[in-house]
Amino acid sequence: MSAIPENSIGIVTPQTVVFDEPIELTSTGRLESYQLVYETYGTLNAAKDNAILVCHALSGDHHAAGYHQTQDDADLLKTVGWWNSMIGPGKPIDTNRFFVVSSNNLGGCNGSTGPNSTNPATGQPYGPDFPIVTVSDWVTSQARLSDHLGIKQWAAVIGGSLGGMQAMQWSISYPERLRHCLVIASASKLNAQNIGFNDVARQAIRTDPDFHNGNYYNQGTLPARGMRVARMIGHITYLSEDMMALKFGRNLRKKSKFDYEFTPEFEVESYLRYQGDRFVDRFDANTYLLMTKALDYFDPAAEANDSLVQALADVTANFFVVSFSSDWRFAPERSREIVRALQSNRINVSYSEIQCDQGHDSFLLPIDDYMNVMTSYMNRIANECEATP
Amino acid sequence: MSAIPENSIGIVTPQTVVFDEPIELTSTGRLESYQLVYETYGTLNAAKDNAILVCHALSGDHHAAGYHQTQDDADLLKTVGWWNSMIGPGKPIDTNRFFVVSSNNLGGCNGSTGPNSTNPATGQPYGPDFPIVTVSDWVTSQARLSDHLGIKQWAAVIGGSLGGMQAMQWSISYPERLRHCLVIASASKLNAQNIGFNDVARQAIRTDPDFHNGNYYNQGTLPARGMRVARMIGHITYLSEDMMALKFGRNLRKKSKFDYEFTPEFEVESYLRYQGDRFVDRFDANTYLLMTKALDYFDPAAEANDSLVQALADVTANFFVVSFSSDWRFAPERSREIVRALQSNRINVSYSEIQCDQGHDSFLLPIDDYMNVMTSYMNRIANECEATP
Repeated sequence: MSAIPENSIGIVTPQTVVFDEPIELTSTGRLESYQLVYETYGTLNAAKDNAILVCHALSGDHHAAGYHQTQDDADLLKTVGWWNSMIGPGKPIDTNRFFVVSSNNLGGCNGSTGPNSTNPATGQPYGPDFPIVTVSDWVTSQARLSDHLGIKQWAAVIGGSLGGMQAMQWSISYPERLRHCLVIASASKLNAQNIGFNDVARQAIRTDPDFHNGNYYNQGTLPARGMRVARMIGHITYLSEDMMALKFGRNLRKKSKFDYEFTPEFEVESYLRYQGDRFVDRFDANTYLLMTKALDYFDPAAEANDSLVQALADVTANFFVVSFSSDWRFAPERSREIVRALQSNRINVSYSEIQCDQGHDSFLLPIDDYMNVMTSYMNRIANECEATP
Repeated sequence: MSAIPENSIGIVTPQTVVFDEPIELTSTGRLESYQLVYETYGTLNAAKDNAILVCHALSGDHHAAGYHQTQDDADLLKTVGWWNSMIGPGKPIDTNRFFVVSSNNLGGCNGSTGPNSTNPATGQPYGPDFPIVTVSDWVTSQARLSDHLGIKQWAAVIGGSLGGMQAMQWSISYPERLRHCLVIASASKLNAQNIGFNDVARQAIRTDPDFHNGNYYNQGTLPARGMRVARMIGHITYLSEDMMALKFGRNLRKKSKFDYEFTPEFEVESYLRYQGDRFVDRFDANTYLLMTKALDYFDPAAEANDSLVQALADVTANFFVVSFSSDWRFAPERSREIVRALQSNRINVSYSEIQCDQGHDSFLLPIDDYMNVMTSYMNRIANECEATP
């Protein structure tokens, strides 16, 4: 048997909830019914005040912590959740104290209703007919999940990157439904460069002949070439220049001199191509497109006279904002903009800028300083809750 | 008639020279014969000491200044050379004083022998059989062009970006054949991030089904999708984050609210797609691949115990190194590395770091401070030359 690390939540089983009440989307699209898949870790206390909602980023899903049962035990450890270093017994988001909920976003490809789900109106996969979803829509659907779980108020809503946007949107859409909002490696809106990178990724996918305008499910194809390129671009922007220099430099791949060919010469080429290939197998292209669009559209200030201060005026949650010095995709300055807008509203806000080399990816990594500040802030939240049963 | 600006070199006509002596390439490839297309601006003086070689970058060519004759005069101004702001009468590289030579690199697609040229061995376009060419190879071929033109020593070899690498290589390969070396917005080697971006662009092109492994000439296809994505990536990295924010911000494209569709929502999306489309028509994919490889391979220190100081030990040219504060593709620190290595060798070097927002593209733009330092340095060179006839 695979030895599951002791400080892990262990094997977890996703759950599914079907919502028959239609959801009206920001895009004016509408889903008559939909399902969300989610996981929970830890135990909800009697007061139901120790619940934490974790929101995932671009290519994440509901499986944030622990492991999934596999047919072959040898594969078990490969199923580790994407934030397993953050969530678990004794970890910063301590499952001995908190009841943690993590759901796959609407439009996702890992169990929640999305483009690869069957459209009840046609009996075929939604494909390109799946409506555009926004961060607000996700928060609406997560609020319904909260109702389903009987959670009136989250002790905290927490997310990194696109997940941080969801946490921020929670504080705006449902100010009374969360006591703390943790926004990590995020921004109140994308800038032109971010949107540019997203659009290149989208164009790579959408112009792949195997994309078939999003109807590839029935064609027996996958827009693998486009997805691969999209992921390669993504990876470069998730890493810092310094980290890439440190990790790969100009090291050659299994050779001591150049072959002067188009096969990979440098390690960094192999690495990016490998990451690209892996992504094709595990992620749906239509979902990737939707997620990047949600990133682009997010801009709460736009509906408040372009004032982030005004957009955050009704917020009551306490905020913890975290950024990483080497993150150039969501630079610390983007976090400081959020902090300043909160301060202008006299909202309690703590801010940590973690010094590290790992770029945007840092928010997923067990970096000591980061883990320490998270532990410290989460302890504060835990101490405000009733004792767990 | 189109009014050609008075301070322009006017209409220029490219010339071609065929070299029948084979060239042995760094890649161990070999071309039995080849041609180079080039333009000249200004007049070579009697002492032949006022000649300037201009080296082009990734997607440039021999047409650096002036205009090309067009059938319709209305199109004339569209044919302006890529460095017309720098080269011309009274401009920093003053054609009243200098004889300027600009050639299309070997492997190019605008007249010099390259993948789209006929391979005499097969009667078909070279396509993927065109050998990998390096910065050193270009310098070798440019030295032969110098011989052909009767230029024993250049007053200066000048280039930006990939062109700067060629200038630097000239100072190493033929130290006695240039008096000044101007290296602008360049680096002594690419870092892992640069190589990563190049490889994504290459993968986008090479996995386009219309690429046909480089044999698209005979298929009636162009790898247009891949080229478009490659150029979009390129453009993002040529601009600075600040410039993109200033130029596009989150401005919407001809609309006041989102359509929630995959058509371009933001101006930056339209701009990048337009740039991508335009590139497909004017540039050859196989050449683009070769140029990016030449960038990756350039690393003179690699052949000198990884010491740039040692690589530059035999240099005798005076150097002028220029960088731009907002250039993150070839950041100022990369230029300072060159400056320090030259200083360690007690080589005369001047260095200017221009403060501006335009990113890597700056080297092509008529930015006042940049034009001023160039004028000043070029004046110094001109004053060392014999009077022009």
